[in-house]
Amino acid sequence: MAQSTAKPDGGANAMNGAQFKLGELAELIDGTVLGDSSVTITGVSSVDSASEGHITYVAEPEVLPRGEQSPAAALIVPPELANSSRKPLVITEDPRLAFSKALALFAPRRRLAPGVHPTAIIGANVQLGEQVAIGAHAFVGDNVLIGDRVAIHPLAYVGHEVTIGDDTEIHPQTYIGDRVVIGNRCIIHPGAVIGADGFGYLQTDQGHHKIPQIGSVIIEDDVEVGANSTIDRATVSATRIGKGTKIDDQCHIAHNCVIGEHCLLCGQVGIAGSAKLGNGVILGGQVGVNDHITIHDGIVIGAGSGVFGTLTKPGVYSGMPARPHHEDMRTLAAAHRLPRLIKRVKELEKRLDELEGRKEE
Amino acid sequence: MAQSTAKPDGGANAMNGAQFKLGELAELIDGTVLGDSSVTITGVSSVDSASEGHITYVAEPEVLPRGEQSPAAALIVPPELANSSRKPLVITEDPRLAFSKALALFAPRRRLAPGVHPTAIIGANVQLGEQVAIGAHAFVGDNVLIGDRVAIHPLAYVGHEVTIGDDTEIHPQTYIGDRVVIGNRCIIHPGAVIGADGFGYLQTDQGHHKIPQIGSVIIEDDVEVGANSTIDRATVSATRIGKGTKIDDQCHIAHNCVIGEHCLLCGQVGIAGSAKLGNGVILGGQVGVNDHITIHDGIVIGAGSGVFGTLTKPGVYSGMPARPHHEDMRTLAAAHRLPRLIKRVKELEKRLDELEGRKEE
Amino acid sequence: MAQSTAKPDGGANAMNGAQFKLGELAELIDGTVLGDSSVTITGVSSVDSASEGHITYVAEPEVLPRGEQSPAAALIVPPELANSSRKPLVITEDPRLAFSKALALFAPRRRLAPGVHPTAIIGANVQLGEQVAIGAHAFVGDNVLIGDRVAIHPLAYVGHEVTIGDDTEIHPQTYIGDRVVIGNRCIIHPGAVIGADGFGYLQTDQGHHKIPQIGSVIIEDDVEVGANSTIDRATVSATRIGKGTKIDDQCHIAHNCVIGEHCLLCGQVGIAGSAKLGNGVILGGQVGVNDHITIHDGIVIGAGSGVFGTLTKPGVYSGMPARPHHEDMRTLAAAHRLPRLIKRVKELEKRLDELEGRKEE
Repeated sequence: MAQSTAKPDGGANAMNGAQFKLGELAELIDGTVLGDSSVTITGVSSVDSASEGHITYVAEPEVLPRGEQSPAAALIVPPELANSSRKPLVITEDPRLAFSKALALFAPRRRLAPGVHPTAIIGANVQLGEQVAIGAHAFVGDNVLIGDRVAIHPLAYVGHEVTIGDDTEIHPQTYIGDRVVIGNRCIIHPGAVIGADGFGYLQTDQGHHKIPQIGSVIIEDDVEVGANSTIDRATVSATRIGKGTKIDDQCHIAHNCVIGEHCLLCGQVGIAGSAKLGNGVILGGQVGVNDHITIHDGIVIGAGSGVFGTLTKPGVYSGMPARPHHEDMRTLAAAHRLPRLIKRVKELEKRLDELEGRKEE
Repeated sequence: MAQSTAKPDGGANAMNGAQFKLGELAELIDGTVLGDSSVTITGVSSVDSASEGHITYVAEPEVLPRGEQSPAAALIVPPELANSSRKPLVITEDPRLAFSKALALFAPRRRLAPGVHPTAIIGANVQLGEQVAIGAHAFVGDNVLIGDRVAIHPLAYVGHEVTIGDDTEIHPQTYIGDRVVIGNRCIIHPGAVIGADGFGYLQTDQGHHKIPQIGSVIIEDDVEVGANSTIDRATVSATRIGKGTKIDDQCHIAHNCVIGEHCLLCGQVGIAGSAKLGNGVILGGQVGVNDHITIHDGIVIGAGSGVFGTLTKPGVYSGMPARPHHEDMRTLAAAHRLPRLIKRVKELEKRLDELEGRKEE
Repeated sequence: MAQSTAKPDGGANAMNGAQFKLGELAELIDGTVLGDSSVTITGVSSVDSASEGHITYVAEPEVLPRGEQSPAAALIVPPELANSSRKPLVITEDPRLAFSKALALFAPRRRLAPGVHPTAIIGANVQLGEQVAIGAHAFVGDNVLIGDRVAIHPLAYVGHEVTIGDDTEIHPQTYIGDRVVIGNRCIIHPGAVIGADGFGYLQTDQGHHKIPQIGSVIIEDDVEVGANSTIDRATVSATRIGKGTKIDDQCHIAHNCVIGEHCLLCGQVGIAGSAKLGNGVILGGQVGVNDHITIHDGIVIGAGSGVFGTLTKPGVYSGMPARPHHEDMRTLAAAHRLPRLIKRVKELEKRLDELEGRKEE
């Protein structure tokens, strides 16, 4: 073990060993073959890292030459690129979606085997669905209800009175606090903390008096919560994440927030207490949202922005504080001209002084 | 388990089963009953989520109608609202504080039962106080001193030579590094990391040379550290958090920092190395504080701000870099008028050109 | 245990019990003694916290008086301060580096004892190097390759097909996902998550369609990853951290990023997907980097900045969006003069109105 183990491509692009004839694969990813449908496909790669036997995708004409020159065995392309290649093709309206399906076919997914590991701690009155997997050193409290095909990975903590829907995956070292409800087909990534106390105090002469946080957190179906993200429990009632919403790593959602359906929260977003997001809201990385405000359906906030007041009008916003993006851009552009502007004003003052002086002569 | 388990209010507002006559409750929360003191109270809710049998609070006149129309069995109100209700009332100078006390009475708190779980790892020469609880798969190192009624939850890691005061709660999956000292009545939330190495390097020709971080972290009494927050150990001596200070989730406090007493650090605050905060400092969400600077007693920094230099004068600051809040607001307002200002200057130049031209005729 | 355990210096500055004659110590830290080389040194402190028997360092003349007046037994100083002290000295060109070496000599380092703890879970076909330590309740998956003298601390999770180089330390409660490759002499701090899924979705009529993330993460030699930081696995291929790069706490590196060698990423930095950093790049605290952009070799970004476009020219950048630091400073200074400038323009307009009026008379 003396030599470095960090070899250039060690570990990456490991496939699951599956292989398909191109025709078979095309059917599985909803495309049509042009060329030799008997080619064997053993994996999937990006266009610049393609290996022999792999399939990759090309969505734009200017990328096609790189696809052609790669060792890939076949390309996924849109209809408009169908005539321009000498490699076997899979033609589809949405090459990215087809590629994503191909990724799933070759994913080296390793599901935790169903069953309860002998070192897992399972509380009293726990109901397990079918084919549930609970990993080594995991902790599950009392009165927990776990749906079918749920995987609770090693070292995860699931508190008391928790409910977890079918097909949900709870990754290692996550914390699911007492009484939290998680829907079906959710993925809770490693280190996420769901249901810690909200940050609520009353200022008194004796210092900050802790307000008990006795509410809960409800995560609806098809939600992902990123690694090391935190979603605090409500003071009363519940902090809620709407169905289909995807939350990236290290996001913080404070107590009493209500996040709508199908939102996207990029990395390190922070949402203060009792804020509300409508459906389909997109927050760029490191966005901050003030407490008790609302961001309405479909609004998009650019990375690094701070939302200090309720936003109702659809559109893209940015800046600190966030304003309509085109206004923010205009102000920003103007700000960069400021040092020059100050000179111009000084110059004007001089000229005017002179003019007035001359006039007074 | 086929149907969704994410039912609208599943898990939320679970009470501990306690119930009180209103008169009895009023005494416990330091209020006076007006109306029927024999009403039975079975829980506590916010005004908009109140259930039958619950008590809620109304602090402002405009909220009173919602309280009246709710199914709540009784309301906590200030003296000035005492005459305007038909529900049984608890009258008190500070309805929020009384409500907070009511929350505590009904909190479905589940203390880890005293005792050491058989799967917990306990090092050599560990001193346990009375009624200490150590949960499943927790790790406690050698020479650790643990006070009375301390709870170390499942999967927590407590390093060697650690000291923990009475009544402190160490939540699941926290990391308490070697030699860290934690006071009485502290709460360390899940995933918090206290005592990892500070980020210190010397630049050399061979790259970044790690400076050993051999100091520690001292957390004084009544401190809360939020979920997934990190407080790094000092190079020498100790990073210190003053008594009564409350730290929200995902805050980062770098090595050698000294945080005063009764401060509030909101979510995702970052404090760079060797910075000092006085007492009663409040930092809004996502605030950044530069290394080696000081923020004096009682200063408040608005959310999203960056503090780049020492602040001594009391008051509210905001912006990037942080300046007195009213100045920052004025500059911000002015910036939004900038595109228009540039036009005005252009116009002035044109008029002056003309004027000068005319003069030269 | 009734009294507070948060005593002023409890736990801090604990030394490892080693002691050296000053002459012996000087040799170990590459310095030369001036004065009594037989003095016994029992520890190391900062100049303001020095105890009797300890050695500290003074790099600047103005700090020397504090060193002189401290109870320290000896001082590490540069040659130019050699004549001005009455204490025994260790003279060296780089006192900070020598001090860092002294710290290492006294560090109360407690290596996990080699051997596999009986409660650790070790998968099938795991290859362990010499003197490997695996702590209590740690999890190691199948087909893992672990180098010599590696320490995997209690409660760490190491997935399947992971490779870890020699002398690397994996701290408690870290998550190392399947197929991740970690080099030699790396330190992965508590709570770090390496190899969670990247945040990749396709927008469809049915909501966000998850793109499987089947790539990996490669961490080269001599890298540190801070507490609760997250490094996501690539969609295909690998997210990569170059050798010698140091990453502070709570940093987020998204999927497909390529970070160069010997970079420094300060606390709470966020780097969006597919971004590239050259070698020797330094990012201040809370910096955000946009997706798919490149920051070239040696560029420095000030704390709190947002990098929205590729930066190629060497230098220091700051602001939101980041621009050359001197331009950003100039704009900032100008912005603070804006409210005044608006008044000046108004004044100009008035004067010009008057002038034009007079002319038209």
